Amino acid sequence: MSVTKPKGFLAASGSVGIKSAGASDVSIVTTRDGNPVSAAGVFTSNKAASAPVQVSRRHLDATSGRCAGVILTSGNANAATGEHGRSAAEQLCSIVAGELDVAAEEILVCQTGLIGVTFPIEMVAPKISGVVERREAGEDADLAAARAIMTTDTVVKIATVEADGFIVGSIAKGAAMISPDMATMLALVTTDARCSSMTASRVLKKAVASSFNEMTIDGCTSTNDSVLLLASGKSERRKEICEGELSEAVTQVCVSLAAQMASDAEGATKVVKVKLVGAVSCEDAHRGARKVADSLLVKCSLNGEDPYWGRVVSELGSAGIAFDIDSVSVSYGSVTVCRGGVAVEHDRTAVANHMRGREIVITCDLGVGTAAGTAVGTDLGHGYIDLNRTTS
Amino acid sequence: MSVTKPKGFLAASGSVGIKSAGASDVSIVTTRDGNPVSAAGVFTSNKAASAPVQVSRRHLDATSGRCAGVILTSGNANAATGEHGRSAAEQLCSIVAGELDVAAEEILVCQTGLIGVTFPIEMVAPKISGVVERREAGEDADLAAARAIMTTDTVVKIATVEADGFIVGSIAKGAAMISPDMATMLALVTTDARCSSMTASRVLKKAVASSFNEMTIDGCTSTNDSVLLLASGKSERRKEICEGELSEAVTQVCVSLAAQMASDAEGATKVVKVKLVGAVSCEDAHRGARKVADSLLVKCSLNGEDPYWGRVVSELGSAGIAFDIDSVSVSYGSVTVCRGGVAVEHDRTAVANHMRGREIVITCDLGVGTAAGTAVGTDLGHGYIDLNRTTS
Repeated sequence: MSVTKPKGFLAASGSVGIKSAGASDVSIVTTRDGNPVSAAGVFTSNKAASAPVQVSRRHLDATSGRCAGVILTSGNANAATGEHGRSAAEQLCSIVAGELDVAAEEILVCQTGLIGVTFPIEMVAPKISGVVERREAGEDADLAAARAIMTTDTVVKIATVEADGFIVGSIAKGAAMISPDMATMLALVTTDARCSSMTASRVLKKAVASSFNEMTIDGCTSTNDSVLLLASGKSERRKEICEGELSEAVTQVCVSLAAQMASDAEGATKVVKVKLVGAVSCEDAHRGARKVADSLLVKCSLNGEDPYWGRVVSELGSAGIAFDIDSVSVSYGSVTVCRGGVAVEHDRTAVANHMRGREIVITCDLGVGTAAGTAVGTDLGHGYIDLNRTTS
Repeated sequence: MSVTKPKGFLAASGSVGIKSAGASDVSIVTTRDGNPVSAAGVFTSNKAASAPVQVSRRHLDATSGRCAGVILTSGNANAATGEHGRSAAEQLCSIVAGELDVAAEEILVCQTGLIGVTFPIEMVAPKISGVVERREAGEDADLAAARAIMTTDTVVKIATVEADGFIVGSIAKGAAMISPDMATMLALVTTDARCSSMTASRVLKKAVASSFNEMTIDGCTSTNDSVLLLASGKSERRKEICEGELSEAVTQVCVSLAAQMASDAEGATKVVKVKLVGAVSCEDAHRGARKVADSLLVKCSLNGEDPYWGRVVSELGSAGIAFDIDSVSVSYGSVTVCRGGVAVEHDRTAVANHMRGREIVITCDLGVGTAAGTAVGTDLGHGYIDLNRTTS
């Protein structure tokens, strides 16, 4: 079980005609009693934010972080669709709200799929109520809900953490590779912990910072990225749940989902963790790590299992961070191949073995400070191009 | 003819053992009489700048822009090579300087090849004088000099402009694709116009801004990029050459070289020009154009000849520039496919025909200002990965 494992939630999914051939394309997750609970959201920084992102942001603002349910659809991003798109996203919320007898602002919406295509709300709208009615708790409902939001994902992505007297569950979609027509990662996290909307917001931001925001597959920030947290407060634990505990559990769930996305990157054969240490600031450390993980040339080297550290140093030098070539070290796995900015003798067999693995760790010590940061990425293979060259 | 077509220059090339199998790997271009002339350089912004870039910068500073000759080598970037690398680059200059009887600071050096490999100066040094002695003017010398600096380039890159009473010539290397081990673009521009070092510097900066700096293949800024301009002042024109005239001719040469690099991009099947108009500033315009041209997803679409404008809008929205989704238009060739941030009916056959061509033009009107900027890039195909996955 995942989203309905925490007490106080129900889920349903179904086919409403967005995807072809009757494929499952909508999930609805609500509180069990239909009452709004504390909620928080983290959304894409893209200024071309999709209609559902605009609508969900507005709803969370209007309610100061209260939500009774979330509707998630796949197959059409409802992005770059103008006023019609915003109206369609509002309608989806209104229909669910009508069924629960709450305000439309107390429903949030996430959508994923092709950008720039009119969302077929006229066809979809009449079918939503039937899905809402089928809500239930349990393994089957959770898996079906996770499956209905998949696009080019090859496996269902769920994560659950049972903490001390409370539970955090989640469903998510997102090939680590941002996919051809499906430029999105979505995650819905539920918990039965009791917390304020303010706490939910802080906890979610922190979890996202050290999970999804450390993951970079192609440097493309989608129009639809959304991560939502709903806290029902229905756990039976008597002792108050402190923010630190909740934060730890939610972060664990997000880290697991991010790892699942990275390892489901179609077209990729490697997952790389770039650890940057010795930076003058955390911002520099993350920026540098991300520059290396995003580099086309580094990604090609990973695909070829070639420990060409010259490219790593070159990316760090052009990352716009404090950098001194004479202080930099680079290691693959546990083997240092560059120290003081120049090649050093090293165990080539050990490096070659590390490069052959599915997970590659590149550690860069800038040697100019004490801050550290990490970026998780993938290699670049033919498969990425094949999957992304056309939308048909 | 190219670099020796302007009056007052000689060129030579040869094999000094950097590349294997006796391949040509050094070019030397000097003034005919061995006297220093006005010179300027534009170098990589990478903080991991190679030894030759560090040395050439220092030399231009020390002489306030005077140079009697340039030595260019290929097969080893002499980057991330520490003190040994700087000393090696200095030695290359000293040897040429000794032959011309000028100060070492009056010689500049450019190198290209694999990063992080010790430069074999002991083997190379004894062979340099012999090359200097063979300098001559003429078609053969120019072509051989252009050929000796090639790495994965498949064609020689030269450009010459005959202006009113003066000439600008040039040789360059650089696959538009930054190649596996050869992470560099180099260009040497000569002219027989008479100008001060200050003028040469302004003219070169301006030419680079509207040629090489508008070109982006993989977003990787190399450790070795260098563009040099030498002005002999030997043209026979009596009337003074104004800065505007010189600027125009030098820019023409640089634009031609940049186009040659783009069309020689191995692994690429398309050259794309992204024109951004309606931006609030030129900086925004260039940044947005470059974000689109650098986008992995856009590059994949180009490879598949798919006019998926949703990705273009998504990149603009995440480019960190002033942006309003409701004001943006996108056109492929002359056909507008998105207006006011949403899809518009259009001639799909005309767009499909445009996408099938070798040169694709994407025009984006942000609709928020009056500034414009351009970026030239390529698609991303299997060939890029195949060429870049290993250095062996």
